Amino acid sequence: MASITIIGTGAMANAIGGVLAGGGHDVAHIAKGEVGTAPVTGDIVVLAVPYPALDGIASAYAEQLAGKVVVDITNPLNFETFDSLVVPAGSSAAAELQAKLPASHVLKAFNTTFAATLGAKRVGDLPTTVLVAGDDAAAKQALISAVTSSGLAAIDAGSLERAHELEAIGFLQLTLAVGEQLPWTGGLAVAR
Amino acid sequence: MASITIIGTGAMANAIGGVLAGGGHDVAHIAKGEVGTAPVTGDIVVLAVPYPALDGIASAYAEQLAGKVVVDITNPLNFETFDSLVVPAGSSAAAELQAKLPASHVLKAFNTTFAATLGAKRVGDLPTTVLVAGDDAAAKQALISAVTSSGLAAIDAGSLERAHELEAIGFLQLTLAVGEQLPWTGGLAVAR
Repeated sequence: MASITIIGTGAMANAIGGVLAGGGHDVAHIAKGEVGTAPVTGDIVVLAVPYPALDGIASAYAEQLAGKVVVDITNPLNFETFDSLVVPAGSSAAAELQAKLPASHVLKAFNTTFAATLGAKRVGDLPTTVLVAGDDAAAKQALISAVTSSGLAAIDAGSLERAHELEAIGFLQLTLAVGEQLPWTGGLAVAR
Repeated sequence: MASITIIGTGAMANAIGGVLAGGGHDVAHIAKGEVGTAPVTGDIVVLAVPYPALDGIASAYAEQLAGKVVVDITNPLNFETFDSLVVPAGSSAAAELQAKLPASHVLKAFNTTFAATLGAKRVGDLPTTVLVAGDDAAAKQALISAVTSSGLAAIDAGSLERAHELEAIGFLQLTLAVGEQLPWTGGLAVAR
């Protein structure tokens, strides 16, 4: 059983927390208003917040997050134009977060799955697969174990540099869903 | 019926040509050794060649390609390291090609589908979907019509700027297939 803290109480936070709790893991949430005061107790910490909230969380919890697995799920879109990302070209929100939390093991995950496909554990008719990128093999394995033991599929997508590609997938998928070319219950699924 | 010229005779060239010919379209191939001498007769021209071959084709055919729909299918990977793309961060092979062929309507397509999933028209158990990005709406519609009338699905993935995201998807998918985390008959499929 993994001990997991989820920062955030929105749709993605609830979907991720629900799946992992359903898998028998110990899940606690920290709400927006508790950031900085509530202690981070889990070994895996999922930052299920919008991209602009990452900086404040990194500042508030840098010491407590040292040595922990920290999961960035954000899609750093310019939500006014839906036409670009707000991170530097070639970089990623996850790489920025890793730079701010050098003592933590930052992973990118869950940004290519919609809340509905996490909750249903299906993307259309296929199993939902969580793509996980990160530099620390043990950290990746810890998250992948928690995810797969909760009934989702998972793939090791490579080093944290691949977060750039995962954020590109998340970006494109969001633009297609917002443009009604994909349903929010579907998306880019891993097919075998 | 569309008139289509495919430059290239490799696995992807044959898969794309086979599908479109099977859909009743007029398909002609130009082999590597004929580049520069064979005339480009089609209205849609698919450059089914490796990324390093694009420059020579653009130079040889710039005049003949003016006004035509030119389809870039490349994944501009560093195939020695499989760890990066060789185009500038934030850009794409398709954007580079459009800059070299300003009088052509460049589209990005077919780079997120493997040859096997084009030939079988299935990604795993799902229909194969061709993601198409480009700036000219009529050009996109011409390719999408040719593709869908040949039994594949297609999605308008947005402007040519989205070629960056399509190339990121192609990149990640190739690394996963080469790493045996995905079969060459599967991949990232559009699920509804």
